[in-house]
Amino acid sequence: MKNNNLQLSSEGKLKHFLSIEGLNHSILSDILDTAESFTSVTERSIKKVPILRGKTVANLFFEASTRTRSTFELAAQRLSADILNLNIDTSAAVKGESLLDTLHNLEAMQIDMFVIRHQDSGSAHFFAQHVNPGVSVLNAGDGQHAHPTQAMLDMFTIRRHKHQFENLTVAIVGDIKHSRVARSQIHALNLLNTGQVRVVAPPTLLPEQAETLGVQVYHKLNKGLKDVDVVIMLRLQKERMTGALLPSEKEYFRQYGLTAERLKLAKADAIVMHPGPANRGIEIESSVMDGNQSVILQQVTYGIAVRMAVMSMIVSGAVESS
Amino acid sequence: MKNNNLQLSSEGKLKHFLSIEGLNHSILSDILDTAESFTSVTERSIKKVPILRGKTVANLFFEASTRTRSTFELAAQRLSADILNLNIDTSAAVKGESLLDTLHNLEAMQIDMFVIRHQDSGSAHFFAQHVNPGVSVLNAGDGQHAHPTQAMLDMFTIRRHKHQFENLTVAIVGDIKHSRVARSQIHALNLLNTGQVRVVAPPTLLPEQAETLGVQVYHKLNKGLKDVDVVIMLRLQKERMTGALLPSEKEYFRQYGLTAERLKLAKADAIVMHPGPANRGIEIESSVMDGNQSVILQQVTYGIAVRMAVMSMIVSGAVESS
Amino acid sequence: MKNNNLQLSSEGKLKHFLSIEGLNHSILSDILDTAESFTSVTERSIKKVPILRGKTVANLFFEASTRTRSTFELAAQRLSADILNLNIDTSAAVKGESLLDTLHNLEAMQIDMFVIRHQDSGSAHFFAQHVNPGVSVLNAGDGQHAHPTQAMLDMFTIRRHKHQFENLTVAIVGDIKHSRVARSQIHALNLLNTGQVRVVAPPTLLPEQAETLGVQVYHKLNKGLKDVDVVIMLRLQKERMTGALLPSEKEYFRQYGLTAERLKLAKADAIVMHPGPANRGIEIESSVMDGNQSVILQQVTYGIAVRMAVMSMIVSGAVESS
Repeated sequence: MKNNNLQLSSEGKLKHFLSIEGLNHSILSDILDTAESFTSVTERSIKKVPILRGKTVANLFFEASTRTRSTFELAAQRLSADILNLNIDTSAAVKGESLLDTLHNLEAMQIDMFVIRHQDSGSAHFFAQHVNPGVSVLNAGDGQHAHPTQAMLDMFTIRRHKHQFENLTVAIVGDIKHSRVARSQIHALNLLNTGQVRVVAPPTLLPEQAETLGVQVYHKLNKGLKDVDVVIMLRLQKERMTGALLPSEKEYFRQYGLTAERLKLAKADAIVMHPGPANRGIEIESSVMDGNQSVILQQVTYGIAVRMAVMSMIVSGAVESS
Repeated sequence: MKNNNLQLSSEGKLKHFLSIEGLNHSILSDILDTAESFTSVTERSIKKVPILRGKTVANLFFEASTRTRSTFELAAQRLSADILNLNIDTSAAVKGESLLDTLHNLEAMQIDMFVIRHQDSGSAHFFAQHVNPGVSVLNAGDGQHAHPTQAMLDMFTIRRHKHQFENLTVAIVGDIKHSRVARSQIHALNLLNTGQVRVVAPPTLLPEQAETLGVQVYHKLNKGLKDVDVVIMLRLQKERMTGALLPSEKEYFRQYGLTAERLKLAKADAIVMHPGPANRGIEIESSVMDGNQSVILQQVTYGIAVRMAVMSMIVSGAVESS
Repeated sequence: MKNNNLQLSSEGKLKHFLSIEGLNHSILSDILDTAESFTSVTERSIKKVPILRGKTVANLFFEASTRTRSTFELAAQRLSADILNLNIDTSAAVKGESLLDTLHNLEAMQIDMFVIRHQDSGSAHFFAQHVNPGVSVLNAGDGQHAHPTQAMLDMFTIRRHKHQFENLTVAIVGDIKHSRVARSQIHALNLLNTGQVRVVAPPTLLPEQAETLGVQVYHKLNKGLKDVDVVIMLRLQKERMTGALLPSEKEYFRQYGLTAERLKLAKADAIVMHPGPANRGIEIESSVMDGNQSVILQQVTYGIAVRMAVMSMIVSGAVESS
């Protein structure tokens, strides 16, 4: 799971996209620049380019998802790929095939790219380790490990609004411990030389020795928000509430919910982000979500351009190195 | 829900298609004429035109449907659109997003047209009120309110066989009260200046003051069928049988089932229609459904051309007015 | 169900593909030759030809399937068809339509080809008997009756590796009695003049008078494998274990499981096949499945080319004879 060289060809090109860990500043910048060129495609009347024409993308979702699956599907359509949607819990798994047999069978169908979301950390890496040369794997979220396209669309959103990373202070607020989104964001922000990355969470929702990730740790939201340029709110997984990790939703909102009042502690031009779907009134006040500092819906839009960028890059990287 | 001006641009072009109410004779005629031109597309060997190439149509079905969903999907394919199918009960709704958040998230994915079926009356209007300029909404059935593409394919079927509306008598038979299909048909028949529109139903299955809809009310099928040109049978929703609204299925068939014998009361060249799926032996005798006065399967075929017509019209209407 | 002339036009062209029974050597050879030409399509970078452009293929799956449904969908995509996927248990069937009404409604949508998988033997023939001229039906598995594209991809695999059939000995091992795959394979092997076709199974898993199918019957695997060129292992349907037909899984493996040791009884260059999904450790040892005599994954790959071949042949056969 840690063999991140998997992601790069011998010439340093991206051939799989599994995690931000293992990548470098240059690749991340390439993704952002390529995504920039695709935003113009998705904004024009005919939203289609022939880059993946005649290629087959398999969407393998072992976990339900609307937003992520839809944006991957739209990204592939707009690149003119053929798409095979497989929601695995309802089909092969019934007959008891192992993940590896499922992979090899799909690979035998001459799939060019796998987009995989799976509840187990490391599953995308596992796929990438076992696919044939010329086939690429794109991680759409694996357990609590990584969600790298989400992190890159977040970086794209920040760059669009703030134009650089070096002088920024970014706060990530919420359940850092269990969030694959946060993990990928922290790696990306650091690789892009972000001025300061803060995490804000109660001790129960922080990984051990969080500081080693290259972040500053805050337990109080008011302090964590002070003078930041970017606030990233995480979704509260309500299933955590049943454990001993958290007090009530109401108490969570009181301590960690982003209100209009609290947002004033950030810089006047700070932007508010959320990977969605948001729990209004739990981690974020409705008026903030819909307010003029919120760029939450733009994140969704940019997600398509970023996924188009990664897809087009890994297909050419995989082909060249095969 | 009553702001039907929503549907028309300032130049009077169709930009959403939500209900027949609020439209006019000219728009309805345009739809029928445009559908006429698309029947030739769907009858030829290569059933495809590039009108929606590079556009994205999202099929949002909150209620299950085979026929309606399939014909919308085929209509969009034959216009060369990209299609995103979302059956919402199994995905976003799980995580508890509101309808409005779902809409805004999808809109952020640069969807050009929403086809929406929802169990709540008014949901398509709600969508249309909240989408951005340039995005159009097509109602594929909302609660007991409207099902306007069904009504228009019915009008198309009538015009194909009877060539005009002015001198026709049309009888709609069955559960008028709860039927979005009947409601839309009545509005369309009246806008197209149909000679006489009759509804035939027991008092429990009629809306209050049904006459105000511009129809003549009959409680007995034999009288209602007398000399009609067109018979439209409605599907009996079997779940109504459990309430006090209806006697047994057998008794319903005896009183309101269309038999070959009864059909003789209509004009000799009368046509028989049904929006499907039909309950053979409950609202209609099998021999009538398969008989030579039945145009029930032609309705399905025309449904694709009519949906292609509406889709092509609202996309250009939405773009021009944005 | 036995009217196999259904499959051929008056000029002897394939217009439906329902079962190997009723076809002839010439048609089978044509399918294999056409598939050969499509393997080059699926191996090149842009895997797409315009043969079915503007045609609509409906995938009607009344039984769940990943592999078969996916390879049919990919075959149709690579022929540039439009595809309508219908998993019937979740939609029309809910409202209680008969199979024939479902067929007629879909046909009214100007579907050009039906790919149908159904739990009832004879359902594909039933469809073919009732569709309009110009529409073709492709059997993707009906009950315990036939699975002809599976058989043809198996023949293609054999021909690719062994170049002819006349001098071959082929053993089919497992539940012959309930297997639509075995039934279709036996017919195909015999039509292609295979030297000797053996079936290997316990008496409880053999049809009565199996010899009349044109096979030699073996009850012991060691004897059945002796000097064969091709071993085809069948999937053990675990639900059979609950009846009195079989002893335990462990005992089944001991008697009928293909081990590396046993495979030595076959010719040194024998190939091992399996229609998938395989039960590792029940009918086949893992090391054999992954070993260098196994061509199991190649079968999957060839399945797409074979399905492209059949689809392209029946569409032109159906059109010419309509």
